[in-house]
Amino acid sequence: MTPEHIRNILEDVRQGKQNVDAAMEQLKDLPFTEMGFAKIDHHRQLRTGYPEVIFCAGKTLDHAEQIIRLMYEHQANILATRASEELFLRVKKLFPEAEYRPDAHVIIIRRHEIQLTETYIPIVTAGTADIAVAEEAAVTAELFGNRVERIFDVGVAGIHRLYSRLDVIRRGRVIIAVAGMEGALPGVIGGLVDKPVIAVPTSVGYGANFSGLSALLTMLNSCAAGISVVNIDNGFGAGYLASLINKIK
Amino acid sequence: MTPEHIRNILEDVRQGKQNVDAAMEQLKDLPFTEMGFAKIDHHRQLRTGYPEVIFCAGKTLDHAEQIIRLMYEHQANILATRASEELFLRVKKLFPEAEYRPDAHVIIIRRHEIQLTETYIPIVTAGTADIAVAEEAAVTAELFGNRVERIFDVGVAGIHRLYSRLDVIRRGRVIIAVAGMEGALPGVIGGLVDKPVIAVPTSVGYGANFSGLSALLTMLNSCAAGISVVNIDNGFGAGYLASLINKIK
Amino acid sequence: MTPEHIRNILEDVRQGKQNVDAAMEQLKDLPFTEMGFAKIDHHRQLRTGYPEVIFCAGKTLDHAEQIIRLMYEHQANILATRASEELFLRVKKLFPEAEYRPDAHVIIIRRHEIQLTETYIPIVTAGTADIAVAEEAAVTAELFGNRVERIFDVGVAGIHRLYSRLDVIRRGRVIIAVAGMEGALPGVIGGLVDKPVIAVPTSVGYGANFSGLSALLTMLNSCAAGISVVNIDNGFGAGYLASLINKIK
Amino acid sequence: MTPEHIRNILEDVRQGKQNVDAAMEQLKDLPFTEMGFAKIDHHRQLRTGYPEVIFCAGKTLDHAEQIIRLMYEHQANILATRASEELFLRVKKLFPEAEYRPDAHVIIIRRHEIQLTETYIPIVTAGTADIAVAEEAAVTAELFGNRVERIFDVGVAGIHRLYSRLDVIRRGRVIIAVAGMEGALPGVIGGLVDKPVIAVPTSVGYGANFSGLSALLTMLNSCAAGISVVNIDNGFGAGYLASLINKIK
Amino acid sequence: MTPEHIRNILEDVRQGKQNVDAAMEQLKDLPFTEMGFAKIDHHRQLRTGYPEVIFCAGKTLDHAEQIIRLMYEHQANILATRASEELFLRVKKLFPEAEYRPDAHVIIIRRHEIQLTETYIPIVTAGTADIAVAEEAAVTAELFGNRVERIFDVGVAGIHRLYSRLDVIRRGRVIIAVAGMEGALPGVIGGLVDKPVIAVPTSVGYGANFSGLSALLTMLNSCAAGISVVNIDNGFGAGYLASLINKIK
Amino acid sequence: MTPEHIRNILEDVRQGKQNVDAAMEQLKDLPFTEMGFAKIDHHRQLRTGYPEVIFCAGKTLDHAEQIIRLMYEHQANILATRASEELFLRVKKLFPEAEYRPDAHVIIIRRHEIQLTETYIPIVTAGTADIAVAEEAAVTAELFGNRVERIFDVGVAGIHRLYSRLDVIRRGRVIIAVAGMEGALPGVIGGLVDKPVIAVPTSVGYGANFSGLSALLTMLNSCAAGISVVNIDNGFGAGYLASLINKIK
Amino acid sequence: MTPEHIRNILEDVRQGKQNVDAAMEQLKDLPFTEMGFAKIDHHRQLRTGYPEVIFCAGKTLDHAEQIIRLMYEHQANILATRASEELFLRVKKLFPEAEYRPDAHVIIIRRHEIQLTETYIPIVTAGTADIAVAEEAAVTAELFGNRVERIFDVGVAGIHRLYSRLDVIRRGRVIIAVAGMEGALPGVIGGLVDKPVIAVPTSVGYGANFSGLSALLTMLNSCAAGISVVNIDNGFGAGYLASLINKIK
Amino acid sequence: MTPEHIRNILEDVRQGKQNVDAAMEQLKDLPFTEMGFAKIDHHRQLRTGYPEVIFCAGKTLDHAEQIIRLMYEHQANILATRASEELFLRVKKLFPEAEYRPDAHVIIIRRHEIQLTETYIPIVTAGTADIAVAEEAAVTAELFGNRVERIFDVGVAGIHRLYSRLDVIRRGRVIIAVAGMEGALPGVIGGLVDKPVIAVPTSVGYGANFSGLSALLTMLNSCAAGISVVNIDNGFGAGYLASLINKIK
Repeated sequence: MTPEHIRNILEDVRQGKQNVDAAMEQLKDLPFTEMGFAKIDHHRQLRTGYPEVIFCAGKTLDHAEQIIRLMYEHQANILATRASEELFLRVKKLFPEAEYRPDAHVIIIRRHEIQLTETYIPIVTAGTADIAVAEEAAVTAELFGNRVERIFDVGVAGIHRLYSRLDVIRRGRVIIAVAGMEGALPGVIGGLVDKPVIAVPTSVGYGANFSGLSALLTMLNSCAAGISVVNIDNGFGAGYLASLINKIK
Repeated sequence: MTPEHIRNILEDVRQGKQNVDAAMEQLKDLPFTEMGFAKIDHHRQLRTGYPEVIFCAGKTLDHAEQIIRLMYEHQANILATRASEELFLRVKKLFPEAEYRPDAHVIIIRRHEIQLTETYIPIVTAGTADIAVAEEAAVTAELFGNRVERIFDVGVAGIHRLYSRLDVIRRGRVIIAVAGMEGALPGVIGGLVDKPVIAVPTSVGYGANFSGLSALLTMLNSCAAGISVVNIDNGFGAGYLASLINKIK
Repeated sequence: MTPEHIRNILEDVRQGKQNVDAAMEQLKDLPFTEMGFAKIDHHRQLRTGYPEVIFCAGKTLDHAEQIIRLMYEHQANILATRASEELFLRVKKLFPEAEYRPDAHVIIIRRHEIQLTETYIPIVTAGTADIAVAEEAAVTAELFGNRVERIFDVGVAGIHRLYSRLDVIRRGRVIIAVAGMEGALPGVIGGLVDKPVIAVPTSVGYGANFSGLSALLTMLNSCAAGISVVNIDNGFGAGYLASLINKIK
Repeated sequence: MTPEHIRNILEDVRQGKQNVDAAMEQLKDLPFTEMGFAKIDHHRQLRTGYPEVIFCAGKTLDHAEQIIRLMYEHQANILATRASEELFLRVKKLFPEAEYRPDAHVIIIRRHEIQLTETYIPIVTAGTADIAVAEEAAVTAELFGNRVERIFDVGVAGIHRLYSRLDVIRRGRVIIAVAGMEGALPGVIGGLVDKPVIAVPTSVGYGANFSGLSALLTMLNSCAAGISVVNIDNGFGAGYLASLINKIK
Repeated sequence: MTPEHIRNILEDVRQGKQNVDAAMEQLKDLPFTEMGFAKIDHHRQLRTGYPEVIFCAGKTLDHAEQIIRLMYEHQANILATRASEELFLRVKKLFPEAEYRPDAHVIIIRRHEIQLTETYIPIVTAGTADIAVAEEAAVTAELFGNRVERIFDVGVAGIHRLYSRLDVIRRGRVIIAVAGMEGALPGVIGGLVDKPVIAVPTSVGYGANFSGLSALLTMLNSCAAGISVVNIDNGFGAGYLASLINKIK
Repeated sequence: MTPEHIRNILEDVRQGKQNVDAAMEQLKDLPFTEMGFAKIDHHRQLRTGYPEVIFCAGKTLDHAEQIIRLMYEHQANILATRASEELFLRVKKLFPEAEYRPDAHVIIIRRHEIQLTETYIPIVTAGTADIAVAEEAAVTAELFGNRVERIFDVGVAGIHRLYSRLDVIRRGRVIIAVAGMEGALPGVIGGLVDKPVIAVPTSVGYGANFSGLSALLTMLNSCAAGISVVNIDNGFGAGYLASLINKIK
Repeated sequence: MTPEHIRNILEDVRQGKQNVDAAMEQLKDLPFTEMGFAKIDHHRQLRTGYPEVIFCAGKTLDHAEQIIRLMYEHQANILATRASEELFLRVKKLFPEAEYRPDAHVIIIRRHEIQLTETYIPIVTAGTADIAVAEEAAVTAELFGNRVERIFDVGVAGIHRLYSRLDVIRRGRVIIAVAGMEGALPGVIGGLVDKPVIAVPTSVGYGANFSGLSALLTMLNSCAAGISVVNIDNGFGAGYLASLINKIK
Repeated sequence: MTPEHIRNILEDVRQGKQNVDAAMEQLKDLPFTEMGFAKIDHHRQLRTGYPEVIFCAGKTLDHAEQIIRLMYEHQANILATRASEELFLRVKKLFPEAEYRPDAHVIIIRRHEIQLTETYIPIVTAGTADIAVAEEAAVTAELFGNRVERIFDVGVAGIHRLYSRLDVIRRGRVIIAVAGMEGALPGVIGGLVDKPVIAVPTSVGYGANFSGLSALLTMLNSCAAGISVVNIDNGFGAGYLASLINKIK
């Protein structure tokens, strides 16, 4: 509900193009669908052609399925994150074009061609076990129309592996760096690259890593500038933010 | 055991209406039933017509069942929270009028008509995944005789959804606001409404939400005045407290 | 900015009573004063006759003083919490009617008579060292027009002290219970009283109390129903919320 | 290895009753049995007639079974804590006199009559869900020869239940108080009784109880004197310590 | 307020020895003095000849001084813990017999001869920096009439120092073990001695000791049986509890 | 040390333009100055014309002063963050053109004209007490050549203040949102704006805010997409990162 | 990539032994194998004859199996830690010489004779339940060519068991001390031995041990010198580090 | 008290060279001096010629001074860590040869020439602010007879600074790596060097570094092998341990 919106509605009222009750309705009528258990916001999607996104964790299978159905009716591409295989089997029955990425735990329904950017987003992981989170970021970024370069298992314990790919990383417009355990990778990249680095701590590790807290704190305390952090295991958030930055014109 | 109680007993003794031993007994005889593993307090219920409540988590099925049986003998309405479906099946066999709300994990046995208040309690959630906790609050408040308005999925990430229902929220006498993840909803409502807001953090989320700690801290630190907080996922506590406030005369 | 507000402005536009630009201005013109470093909200105060409140902690002396000056021009009663004696001396020079409560660390400027409620709010502390926080709550509640009963040093380590004042506590409409260290007082009161209890943990204690965390957790985990919790040492929040509940009609 | 021991061995050497190598052996030969994966200490048991104790958590079934066999050969009564039913079935096959207490998760093998003390240890719980831990304490204390009084479900949310049993509690020599959630019970008892109180926090609760941390902190911060605390859910530790105190002559 | 009390009052009422109002008064009249900001409990002291105790931390100098004055009027010995030198100078002016122990931060006023027990309480510290807390325990125990043996600086980093004093420790009836940093001393003593061990963690240390949390956790997790723990730096609590145990008859 | 660098040096060696030792020297000779206690990296600055930055916290006055002197010789603009007034007075004596921003605790030495971007970075704070951190971000961004819009005190407790400035916020290319206490502001902005939001938690608050932990967790758990977080109070980090994003071409 | 390496390549280029592109290739060509999801580093192994190590936790079975296959092709001995039995069965099918140590959860493939050191590493545990972690350390150290002495179940609760093996411990060159619960063992050993002690906290315990945090903090705070700590349950890290120290010449 | 000791004493008793009481005395007479408040252990020093060490934090000035005096009488070199300048001035008056290192907060008294090792210990810091802790390690190592190489300010945010000194680091026998903030340096070094790395987290940083917890967790979770960790800011512990390893023959 931008100021321009308000101005237009007021202008219409002044010119008698619509009466007060109708305007009232409009000022209240925001672009979401009321489902009782959920209010689906089509606003951003309608305007941008972006996919509609549903975060499935904590939702019942019924709720998740109904939300996906509603989204489907809006003709949008659909991204369901933290989706179980069980949910996928239900969705697949309804919409056979649905795909599942088991490593990233996402369901995708592509109904429109997606145009990819020329610039790309390097997505870098410290280890093999961080790939699940990195893939959530990658699939998100791709569905939002970004080209992605995957560079996996280049953590600081064998830093020469990172150097061998450094030129590819440096040419990205914004970098996603994913790491569990000690979480030092984003800080090292931040010191080598003059681009924004989105750090994603993962819950990979054991003992005093406290389900990702260790990596999170490392990244927040990074001495290198140009780094910011998203929640532990939040591949979607990193992919979405990177898309926003990669598409700046 | 109020002072009036003591005075009455003393008066009876003075007038010889009862002897010392009997009075002694009474002063010791508090209105609960000793079950060995539990002491069931019928005091509040007898006096107020309120339902008897049992918190089932951590109790064995046998213990829970026996307590419900005893309550049933007292003719009260019964509310069993954190009840498993397994317990419900046992109870159902004994008392076919028992109902189960799987989303709220509560068993209800209604033995008396419940008169609802005219004022109502809006119960608001940030997301769909917070509904389980909100329903525990709603069922509790209803069983204690309050009218309830459910307003779900209006979290601050799409704050226009909240505005569309703000008038309904404002007309409540006391508001229950349920949120996980960042937990910002109660603070925003508190800034928009001049009513007491009971904030319920939920354990919904992942990563650095630390099983609800994140939402809990947000709510405790809210800059808006008029907000207080109950334990994480404590829908029952919120429903009970809201009932106390809603029924102030 | 309530829906009624919007409707009235729209009606004026329709009837030509005001033009679009003026309405636009109004819809944007919310009732606060822009001070650059602060935006002072007079909305609630103007409407209700309530005092204006400023939270001084973290603000420079200059900022705090300028905000108080501005409030003074609005003719409101003023409550400045977490105020240092140094700030008070500055304010006293400007407005000789300013008072300082050193135990509660608040500055008060009374410009209007305050009508007190007939019902009262019992404010109970576990120990003597909790009085500072209790007084912040008490002064807040009084300035908002509530009668208050102070009942200090009745913690559970000598629970007979609590019983001796229980009848006074029970006659309150809503109770504020303040405790540090183990923080058990609100739970015990909650089990003895059928009224809402606002629990205020204090940072009083040492060792494993971790600056109030111990008392906070105790209160959140209370088995007694009807209890909710505000932030550690947040006397103001408790006083304000109690006032909202005490004034329910 | 007490100083008297050393003196006796030295005296023997001086008198030629034993040679240096034998003495050397003795000074090294401490009263335990080497099992490779464990070193079983029979010292205390041999001297006192006390049962031998094995803490089963974290041990493989094979290890636990072999240790119990070895203990059995020493003719002692045996107490196996944190024992699974699976382990019990194995042990039962070997020693049919073995008993299992499923609520306390302990295996007992009684090979000698146990003489009980005249004084007794009251074991008090706040709720029904705390009984498992209380039973671990009770069984331990009984096997070490103490009379026990069980007083369950008298938590502070309905404090009159506690008062009804206060005289029984007061006559104990040392009191075990078991509580989860808010953990306030031991502090309240400590204020009412002039006896040592051993506080046992349990992991019973949810949300911000953080697996017993809440109750633990409450107990450590208790304002009442005479209270000390053992680890969360450590019924055995409480029972053992209470036995030491109860048997002081 | 014991049951015998109630019975006696009832008997008096029955026999007409006192009327209902007087009895009422008595049943309400608990043995403390109301000071407004504090309620001083003389109950235990009157009955036992024990000293009266005031915990000064968090109290204003005025409050502390007034409480000490009141106690003085009751002719009791007085123990003021966590007392500043500033408070002492005030008290000294009023009561020249007051003494100050700067290491333990306590003020003592001895008005009666104290008879010491024959059995004694060994008070053991791991390091020199733990002496302040140990002295608080020692002074408390002594003022409550217990003989004390001080054994300082025998921590596990040089465990032969502990062995050299082990016989003295073993002859105590109950042992207080005080340790900061790693906090391992009580567990080692607990493995060597068949007596109750009261473990006192101190905030001595740096880095990952987190103001005593490290020592606290070590003690709670001790594998040796017979150990319980009081709050960090709580010398008074340990001294008081040890006195209760040492005086068991 | 980019691959192009290595190639060029190799080419020179091949062509005999330089000998092996000289090349060796170059491959080792990285563009920093060794000061013994510090290694000053002029690399980025030389290449980009960016200012040189020194983080003063934890450095002695002597070290900080010597580093600033060295930077001055490199003709760069200089930004010293977390600088005390005492350091400023020293620096001012050496370089009279030095400026101090007491609210942001930074020293600036401008030796070159700075060209500002046309696009701007909105820097938004929840409260007045967050301004210090916001100013650190603002001064940083400005010194790196970005236009900045300051929008202060628009926290969610009075959310209409935020709406009144929403159009200005929306026109930024990247937004910095600074908040302490509950920290909800960035999440609310993230839901209203389609731009990257850099969230800066501040240590402003008290009680359960735990020095900024509360705001940090809120921001990490934000349900709105497009948000990432820097360390508590890290205004510099936010300003630097925003500059990187704002200057993307 | 050591300086000597660079020098040699440069010398070759100067002498025309290789051209720039080839040198370029070499400078980039680091000794690992790119597998897409992993980059296997054969560098250390090739040079030292050491086994190749794979940490299996968090990796899919497919990934783990493929990595082991690749390692097998390099003719190295192989150590797979945190390996499930399920993975072992797959590997066994491929390489029948594979062995599984179920207590240590490691898979070993020995393809070369391993020469053991004359000096040995004592590996000491506090309890029987710590053996799993100790075995991971032992197997690691052995596969890296070290002789190992296992000394299990000598924790401080029965410290005479430790003394009986002290001479064996003292003759080690470096000691690994493994303990859960209170974690005091390494500190006691550190006080008795003049050798480096590698402390390994385990997650063995319950309640306030918080999955090994208790033991970790104890070890970090040890008053004895010569101790350092690895991650909770990190037997591999301890074994590897001990091998480095034991092989110092 | 080694087994050889015991054997010798026994042999003397057998041969009548000493009587039982004298032997008894010896077996009890351990080589420390009882000072009442401290027990000074001269054992290690006498045997090895190592300096005597006193940790001053938490000790009163009087206690610290008396301990240093006693040590002085034993003719040893003396190292006093965490010593204030105030203590130094006292000591300087007594022993004019005392030196103070204000950056490392240590007092040194050299009474004997110290022979340095040929091998050296590289001591590496991430930043300038870590130097204080590194100097404590360096001074300790030097006083124990080790050559030291200081390599400061080579943190991972500008990793080329580390590479430029890598050859010096690699030639050490054992490496001390000191870092605050993100604490990634030891892990990166561990990946580049085949030597034991002692990681020292420092409390340098702000915000979510939580007084060094962030760096501590990073180091514990390091993916590189060969790393172990000492307490936060524990330069002495690192220096002592490195000396043990560096002197292995």
